[in-house]
Amino acid sequence: MRSNELEVLINWGDTDKAGIVYYPNFFKWFDIAGHQFFRSCNLAPAKLEEERGIIVPLLDVQCTFEKSLLYDDLIIIHTKVEEINRKTIKLRHVIYRDGVRCAQGYELRGWVEKSPEGIKAVIIPEDVKGILNENIETKVDKNRPRFNA
Amino acid sequence: MRSNELEVLINWGDTDKAGIVYYPNFFKWFDIAGHQFFRSCNLAPAKLEEERGIIVPLLDVQCTFEKSLLYDDLIIIHTKVEEINRKTIKLRHVIYRDGVRCAQGYELRGWVEKSPEGIKAVIIPEDVKGILNENIETKVDKNRPRFNA
Amino acid sequence: MRSNELEVLINWGDTDKAGIVYYPNFFKWFDIAGHQFFRSCNLAPAKLEEERGIIVPLLDVQCTFEKSLLYDDLIIIHTKVEEINRKTIKLRHVIYRDGVRCAQGYELRGWVEKSPEGIKAVIIPEDVKGILNENIETKVDKNRPRFNA
Amino acid sequence: MRSNELEVLINWGDTDKAGIVYYPNFFKWFDIAGHQFFRSCNLAPAKLEEERGIIVPLLDVQCTFEKSLLYDDLIIIHTKVEEINRKTIKLRHVIYRDGVRCAQGYELRGWVEKSPEGIKAVIIPEDVKGILNENIETKVDKNRPRFNA
Repeated sequence: MRSNELEVLINWGDTDKAGIVYYPNFFKWFDIAGHQFFRSCNLAPAKLEEERGIIVPLLDVQCTFEKSLLYDDLIIIHTKVEEINRKTIKLRHVIYRDGVRCAQGYELRGWVEKSPEGIKAVIIPEDVKGILNENIETKVDKNRPRFNA
Repeated sequence: MRSNELEVLINWGDTDKAGIVYYPNFFKWFDIAGHQFFRSCNLAPAKLEEERGIIVPLLDVQCTFEKSLLYDDLIIIHTKVEEINRKTIKLRHVIYRDGVRCAQGYELRGWVEKSPEGIKAVIIPEDVKGILNENIETKVDKNRPRFNA
Repeated sequence: MRSNELEVLINWGDTDKAGIVYYPNFFKWFDIAGHQFFRSCNLAPAKLEEERGIIVPLLDVQCTFEKSLLYDDLIIIHTKVEEINRKTIKLRHVIYRDGVRCAQGYELRGWVEKSPEGIKAVIIPEDVKGILNENIETKVDKNRPRFNA
Repeated sequence: MRSNELEVLINWGDTDKAGIVYYPNFFKWFDIAGHQFFRSCNLAPAKLEEERGIIVPLLDVQCTFEKSLLYDDLIIIHTKVEEINRKTIKLRHVIYRDGVRCAQGYELRGWVEKSPEGIKAVIIPEDVKGILNENIETKVDKNRPRFNA
């Protein structure tokens, strides 16, 4: 299955008064990593919407917190396709710092068509399944946009 | 088991370009509702830390999104104790708009002692279990702090 | 000139590792207080857009920080019209805790018409000027939506 | 005077229902750019605090919004020392997209000593003034941490 990884430097504003990352921020990273994953395999959300009228809304999400993260920590978010269902895709996100897993969870996203009549989940087309199924590991291109705050 | 509920008015800044709530904000509300739940039964986090040296960090969290939420929606977050384990507490949060459930999930929080040597999970004392076990439903007092932005 | 005030209870997630409020959150409150101000005088942003095709985007904003704010602090945000210009409105926001001023600043918002051709600043109509000019002080109705997280 | 620049890719969650960036996020970027500026000239905030007991809290901040920013926009934040006062430093941040200025403003930060007795503004030492005064323009090192969400 496809995977991608990106690096994030933890900001001052991501922490709370306990001195560690405020937990909803893990989902900010999941969301960024999810978008970046789709970009990495030529299924960028903006393009999906423009070219196919498809959006990929969240249906379910979960995270297990294993190690506290701190200001100035450099983390890697590894995102991999875990399931390709008829109308949904499950991504697994794993967060590492210095090679040690600190948190992990999933995002279940729908494959949803927008039309003048409204939105509805539709069957994921074969070409998309093909892309998601490839055993390719990508990383954020170092010559591309950097900070993603 | 204990439960509490609070009302939240959805802010402009909670939405994203799809016109609906950006999903990490559901966890902002879970966190606020969790803190408010503990306040509602006289276990306010600030007090727990000061009087007992106890903090209640997140260990695991999950949310299922059922209906999109919009700017200006008035929601109710109903929080109830779901499990009282030896060293952890599981809260269930259910979000309603006009009586219709829009999202639900849980927070698993540890009962953790802070000391000069560090932090460690400890057994939840009987008096706390007693409070959490009571069949009392509270609501945010209308004569109390209001906006919680 | 019109004014309104609202109370906010400071959340755990509003703080940073210095133990005080992370400063961009002051602007989250300014934005909420601005929206609440417009609601308080029957010019709710959602209604302005629907009924008049008018939006009130930010043009300029400033804040001076005088006292640190902490988790669990109950603050009052007092919002008052400071200037009514031809095509802009300046609101002054002052944040108090226990009667002591902790921060203050302004939001300069445009009076902007949306049409199929795009958006453009237009002259503020006399009825709106009349409303903004009234010497009426309102507060958030205690029987209304409460938390605003 | 010293300057630094960094690139940011605008996230889905940075937008609001108007489809443009929610304005408090500009200050999130100012804060990140401020921290990055200090890192760029060997005055990283974490190091300042550890080695000198110095923190650099916000005293005043302002921003003028000139162009709307959108999801997927790649922006550059250019940060330059504007004033070095006795006990404060003023940074000017200018945000560009495709070479066009979209927003600009300042952060006024104090030079503040932490001690067991509390915090107080102190005189900026000559070595720091020397660093801030140098005419050196830096950019974020492309081989360094990337995303900064």
